[in-house]
Amino acid sequence: MNNPEFAFKQNMVEFYDTTLRDGSQAEGVAFSVEDKLIIIEALDKLGIRYIEGGYPGSNPKDIEFFKRAKEMTLESAKVVPFGSTRYPSYDPDEDPNLSALLETGARTVTIFGKSWQLHATDVLRVSAEENLEIIESSVNYLVDNGREVIYDAEHFFDGYSDDSEYAIETLHAASAGGANCIVLCDTNGGRLPLEIQEGVKAAISALNLPIGIHAHNDAGMGAANSVLAVQAGANHIQGTFNGYGERCGNANLASIIPTIQLKLGLECISDEQMQELTSVSRLISELANLPHDERQPYVGRSAFAHKGGLHTDAIRKNRLTYEHIEPEKVGNTQRILVSDQAGRGTIMKKIEKEYPNYDKNSPQVLELFDRLKKAESDGYQFEAAEASFELLTHRVFNGYESFFEHLGFRVIIEKFTDLTMRSEATVKVTTPDGTTTHTAADGHGPVNALDTALRKALELYYPSLQKVRLIDYKVRVLDTKAGTGSKVRVLIEASDGKRSWRTVGVSENIISASYEALIDSFEYKLHKDKDSIK
Amino acid sequence: MNNPEFAFKQNMVEFYDTTLRDGSQAEGVAFSVEDKLIIIEALDKLGIRYIEGGYPGSNPKDIEFFKRAKEMTLESAKVVPFGSTRYPSYDPDEDPNLSALLETGARTVTIFGKSWQLHATDVLRVSAEENLEIIESSVNYLVDNGREVIYDAEHFFDGYSDDSEYAIETLHAASAGGANCIVLCDTNGGRLPLEIQEGVKAAISALNLPIGIHAHNDAGMGAANSVLAVQAGANHIQGTFNGYGERCGNANLASIIPTIQLKLGLECISDEQMQELTSVSRLISELANLPHDERQPYVGRSAFAHKGGLHTDAIRKNRLTYEHIEPEKVGNTQRILVSDQAGRGTIMKKIEKEYPNYDKNSPQVLELFDRLKKAESDGYQFEAAEASFELLTHRVFNGYESFFEHLGFRVIIEKFTDLTMRSEATVKVTTPDGTTTHTAADGHGPVNALDTALRKALELYYPSLQKVRLIDYKVRVLDTKAGTGSKVRVLIEASDGKRSWRTVGVSENIISASYEALIDSFEYKLHKDKDSIK
Repeated sequence: MNNPEFAFKQNMVEFYDTTLRDGSQAEGVAFSVEDKLIIIEALDKLGIRYIEGGYPGSNPKDIEFFKRAKEMTLESAKVVPFGSTRYPSYDPDEDPNLSALLETGARTVTIFGKSWQLHATDVLRVSAEENLEIIESSVNYLVDNGREVIYDAEHFFDGYSDDSEYAIETLHAASAGGANCIVLCDTNGGRLPLEIQEGVKAAISALNLPIGIHAHNDAGMGAANSVLAVQAGANHIQGTFNGYGERCGNANLASIIPTIQLKLGLECISDEQMQELTSVSRLISELANLPHDERQPYVGRSAFAHKGGLHTDAIRKNRLTYEHIEPEKVGNTQRILVSDQAGRGTIMKKIEKEYPNYDKNSPQVLELFDRLKKAESDGYQFEAAEASFELLTHRVFNGYESFFEHLGFRVIIEKFTDLTMRSEATVKVTTPDGTTTHTAADGHGPVNALDTALRKALELYYPSLQKVRLIDYKVRVLDTKAGTGSKVRVLIEASDGKRSWRTVGVSENIISASYEALIDSFEYKLHKDKDSIK
Repeated sequence: MNNPEFAFKQNMVEFYDTTLRDGSQAEGVAFSVEDKLIIIEALDKLGIRYIEGGYPGSNPKDIEFFKRAKEMTLESAKVVPFGSTRYPSYDPDEDPNLSALLETGARTVTIFGKSWQLHATDVLRVSAEENLEIIESSVNYLVDNGREVIYDAEHFFDGYSDDSEYAIETLHAASAGGANCIVLCDTNGGRLPLEIQEGVKAAISALNLPIGIHAHNDAGMGAANSVLAVQAGANHIQGTFNGYGERCGNANLASIIPTIQLKLGLECISDEQMQELTSVSRLISELANLPHDERQPYVGRSAFAHKGGLHTDAIRKNRLTYEHIEPEKVGNTQRILVSDQAGRGTIMKKIEKEYPNYDKNSPQVLELFDRLKKAESDGYQFEAAEASFELLTHRVFNGYESFFEHLGFRVIIEKFTDLTMRSEATVKVTTPDGTTTHTAADGHGPVNALDTALRKALELYYPSLQKVRLIDYKVRVLDTKAGTGSKVRVLIEASDGKRSWRTVGVSENIISASYEALIDSFEYKLHKDKDSIK
């Protein structure tokens, strides 16, 4: 090992996250500097060893980011800049790419070079020989400047398939330059697992260095290619969280980490760190401002959700029957879904805690079942709106509980000639003491105005509503083909600082759907407050 | 082969689609009978051999569906019902599950049985011996009734890992009963590719029957497990389109079909059928009413999209450098994205056709670049709104082209005590001849009212707008954490019957964002009409 700092251990696999660099190549993904720092902190706590933070040679803003990252106190992660081998026309010590890497001050740097002759000749426009010299001299320059160097062999597997001897020669060039770890990249993402194993084995037998894998998902093999590379002897895995990345994305670390540790039995991070996996995955999608993929292995909201009547019956008998791991190990939870496919058995499991004295044939259960089916065919979904489901159930079993009577609302939205806008809502409600309150409020938009006016009307009578904050607001257009006349479903998440809950509203009118979810949200809070007084 | 109808050929792989049955176990997925018939027609044209249509024993509605399906004229696909082996307490000829299968009248039927002792004892509550008898007698009863039987060995790989001898015995029982094909299921979806290969090889050497694979995606290995099963000798693949299915979904046929054919070189469907793959995948997500996964391998909108400046430069030099297959083969297309990561080179490639005489340093290109960056930081995305991008570019290069001046609007939404609603919009515009038009309209909701009022005002002067229909309307809440005060981005797709185009609007006020996208949509139509007059 050229560099004693390099923490290569024979029986461990180390993870290298490139969400902030390769991941941000994904369509619709862009991270601010603040986002990046929050993500680095979370990945460090999770036990990720290397975090690729950016590409300073291609994006000058990244220099500023690396300065901020250097000031962070991290437990064990290293923040790594990414760059390319030198330009053919520059000497290493004059090359702007290599200088940008050194300027970040990072002790570990990653550079990529070409393993496929097609790229050397068609993209770099240099001969096969010159390409080898470019690799060796670039790595060597960074090593001479005291850096730990991770070398990414771009397009290694395509190159290996085209000319295996030359592809291995490029790795020897990086090794001769002093690289500390050589990472084999399936840059186009189209190679299959057994091809990956062949390439990894060839590299391991040719070199006396740790070998890594960098896979993409263009054939849906990102995770499999990474795991099979480890089974062939690789011990450094590059990937992104949630599989973000250009085209079909990179290999998904949120799938690979638990597979390597829980299924192959290689210990990589602590059990406590593993329990943070789901929340880190969700944090990153939140900051990427993308919906979290519900079906994502291990960490998705549906990953341990059971809907079919048959499966839920079996799950009640023995969890192992339909769960490949215990969801708690990765910080996720089992969910039993309410839907028209779910038999009455599933609904019984949802309500048995609250209503233990009813069975499948009780009139209330039958009525609830009918109302759920009707609501779902109208476009409601209670899978993501537990609070609306609980209110509906409560109304069926205990009758309607009126905290206030709503007598109507009006919302006016105006855009004036000078382009300024105004949104005003008026709301009229009657509270249980018989008082009719008529309030008005302006807002940032019509829903915000309505929310504000409704609070004004209710807070006098129910001061606890002052604590309720709306923390999430989502709109889904149903039957989008109806154009602007489509039905919409609105989901609102609210919190009172102690717990949070979600409600749903559906209408052809977005304001009405939002109002319905708002009303449910306030009623749920009042319903829960009353329960706690009992 | 017991049944000459069975189309098993040694050198081919056949596909078995279960989108309509296992796929509809997915959270948020439900198909109507009409949806199912449309999907069957599309899958038949694509060359899918078996289409699992439903589970008549668990869902009586499916009996009706199979009657309708029987009336269809299909090119080669067989529509197959799914069910379980008989209940332990019934004889085969009295079993309601098996009767329901026969009642559908389908010539081919699929039943599943237990290969894992845990399931026999904990779910069915029968002994290991009884379980074997249940499998054999159930298959045999269906074969005696003249059916081709596909036997799904549920939990085969978990069973094989627990007790390999017993797992293989269950397959022998199905074979003794006369099954025509035996499908090994990774029901919990947690097995890894090399384990799958071991199980497939064991089954092939034990039995003289075609062996199939049914994989799930709980460890992100659904496609890899299916492809490696084929490499181990399996020749029947079960999966769903877009990977829909319970929990993390089933193996995705839209990934597997092109991998098997284009990479393993096994011919399964014709080249023309392969070119329909992307549109079938999108049709199914449309009918499932789910957004099409943009990152989906082969068929996703981003699967061949290039954003990084580096990659797009290379792609311009040689397409092979960053594309694992030619997108046209699966009916997809290459896309060059506009985004703040894209350098001026990428933007040049987008505009070079329309504006060939400008270079990277032209003042117009620099201004466009600045305006795009500003707009994206405000929440606009032009990746999905090509028409708004084209209008913006046109305004930068040719100056603003005013088709009408909008003097403002007002929208009133009211909900009355009797729960009825009213949405009324008024719009004021000046047309180029100096006329100020002030119109009013009611609508299904505020956006629909605004759309209607705006058309009323403009159609007198621009009758071609009568042909414009809004065919899609999407709302995305940005920075959802701001609750009801969040910014929203509205995307509108419009069509004039000949072509369709997409526009975008962003605002804290959903009505204003919708209005902006509407205006762009109408302006784009007028701009194009004028172009065609030139």
